[in-house]
Amino acid sequence: MALQTVRWEDGHLYIIDQTLLPTEFKEIRLDTQEAVWEAIKSLRVRGAPAIGVCAAFGVLVGFRQLAPPDAGSARQAVRQVAGYLATSRPTAVNLFWALNRMRAVAEHRDAPSDVETLYARLESEARSILEEDGATCRAIGESGESLIRDGDGVLTHCNAGGLATAGYGTALAVMFRAHEKGRRFQVFADETRPLLQGARLTTWELMQAGIDTTLICDNTAAQVMREGRIHLVIVGADRIAANGDTANKIGTYNVALIAKAHDIPFYVAAPVSTFDLDLSSGDGIPIELRGTEEVTQGFGVPTAPENVRVYSPAFDVTPSRLITGIITERGVLRPPLEIAIAALGGGQTAFA
Amino acid sequence: MALQTVRWEDGHLYIIDQTLLPTEFKEIRLDTQEAVWEAIKSLRVRGAPAIGVCAAFGVLVGFRQLAPPDAGSARQAVRQVAGYLATSRPTAVNLFWALNRMRAVAEHRDAPSDVETLYARLESEARSILEEDGATCRAIGESGESLIRDGDGVLTHCNAGGLATAGYGTALAVMFRAHEKGRRFQVFADETRPLLQGARLTTWELMQAGIDTTLICDNTAAQVMREGRIHLVIVGADRIAANGDTANKIGTYNVALIAKAHDIPFYVAAPVSTFDLDLSSGDGIPIELRGTEEVTQGFGVPTAPENVRVYSPAFDVTPSRLITGIITERGVLRPPLEIAIAALGGGQTAFA
Repeated sequence: MALQTVRWEDGHLYIIDQTLLPTEFKEIRLDTQEAVWEAIKSLRVRGAPAIGVCAAFGVLVGFRQLAPPDAGSARQAVRQVAGYLATSRPTAVNLFWALNRMRAVAEHRDAPSDVETLYARLESEARSILEEDGATCRAIGESGESLIRDGDGVLTHCNAGGLATAGYGTALAVMFRAHEKGRRFQVFADETRPLLQGARLTTWELMQAGIDTTLICDNTAAQVMREGRIHLVIVGADRIAANGDTANKIGTYNVALIAKAHDIPFYVAAPVSTFDLDLSSGDGIPIELRGTEEVTQGFGVPTAPENVRVYSPAFDVTPSRLITGIITERGVLRPPLEIAIAALGGGQTAFA
Repeated sequence: MALQTVRWEDGHLYIIDQTLLPTEFKEIRLDTQEAVWEAIKSLRVRGAPAIGVCAAFGVLVGFRQLAPPDAGSARQAVRQVAGYLATSRPTAVNLFWALNRMRAVAEHRDAPSDVETLYARLESEARSILEEDGATCRAIGESGESLIRDGDGVLTHCNAGGLATAGYGTALAVMFRAHEKGRRFQVFADETRPLLQGARLTTWELMQAGIDTTLICDNTAAQVMREGRIHLVIVGADRIAANGDTANKIGTYNVALIAKAHDIPFYVAAPVSTFDLDLSSGDGIPIELRGTEEVTQGFGVPTAPENVRVYSPAFDVTPSRLITGIITERGVLRPPLEIAIAALGGGQTAFA
């Protein structure tokens, strides 16, 4: 997969505008912090790891825009831009994690005292976040690939592919790696209302990789399981609490429940940067509410009465007890997840 | 509700074209058996009872079109038109039940020997089917209304309202009647992909009746249940086997599973004409597969890669064990459903 979801070149930030896929493949350049904020908010760039990478470079964009004259105002600029970008979306913890890393560079006691050197160090940090993400995704693929056996049917929800990361994916990395190793299997992709990331992005990525792919409506997954076509579920994550409760795209909890009812293993694939050890359970994860129009006018035509009330949380929380394992770059965590997560020692603290 | 989903006036068949709702309310006249077939196939008229009523009048339309010169060819014409209309959609048994009733009129040993009198008798039978449907729906509403208590949240899937019947609905009849009796409750309507009957039709009907209505994506139902907002589920049915297994719009089985996981009662509302006693279980119910485009181009713009494979069954089967009760015009059937259904004594045999 040669996807470059987020790209930094000659001091400019480019992203693939994912709202246009799959009918149009277009890169756009984000030249202001406001443009970066808007791109994250409106899901031009989405997926927890990709948001983190984009926001890290967004700090550089905002920094240059503010053009701080001295070291003191430079630190202030980083704090200000990071604080602003942190307001774009509330649920994915990787956003705060990446912004924290950028802020830590500026606030380090050995931080350079001249603006240009500080900028260079910030740029180097953002590049590291990007490169580490690629390595992490490949390691996640390696950790999980053996879970997919020849002849399996795999269900996934939303898009946890290359487009959700800097390039190889989390849940899809597992499938890409199994495919690279010659395993033959079938993937069923939930279309994932309201914004259809499954229909628009996941099928597109899987088909490009030559993986056998079938698109279904979200409400069809239970029937497909009942027909015996699904052997495991793999999804991504936006934030995982210390006990393993997992926030991911709305509908994930539904998939976990119906997988349980059919005795189908349910895996979450995510980098360690997705763990939020500040939260003992998923109850504390802030859930973003999206606008009515995404449901009622998602495709330019009204599909519901004009004044209908809509409830559209962007995420839900799958309780730890429904999760068979969490596939990370450091291996597959197994229940009791609380203990396995604690044993990792890593994880994040949210943006303070 | 003054809805006239299917209307017969001055020898002409009119239906509300439901594919245009809620943005456009338009009646169309169906002047040929081919137009009736197309209207059923493409869901201009949909909902098991409404399809039955429309097909009954469709026999008259086809009869006139064929203009049989004598009694023998008239019987033949009824058989031919009924056989043709029976091929429009395979799952809802009410279609076959209504066509059977029309055919029985023509094949009765006391059937009139002149063409005009036979036509009048057929017209009278179709009118009876329409009128009985209205009375049946009201009786279903009466049977079930006490299940909804003040302050309840009710979830429904697809549209089992006035638009799915000759005018008052099945699942929605229960809500309309509870509302008429002054009960205060909230309804959450699944949008129901791919054709959005929940978003387009159910919310529209409920809002017109003044019932508190919230639209959700299908994949959000589990989260709404988890938040404690749902106290019971009521859905319609397209065919119910002798053991209570229930075919209904795709996604209904999903809802039944997640309701079970949250200990929420799950009710089916349907007229006795929906029972198919020829089938011992739901395994024998034929499930219609719909076209790819309804999923990939449902909104007039492509929302998936061009050549993606799609699996789109129009219905699924909810096993009897997940059903708390079946609300019929003769009362609420309770488990063991097999026994309760057998005790009804009625029910259908499919179109032979």
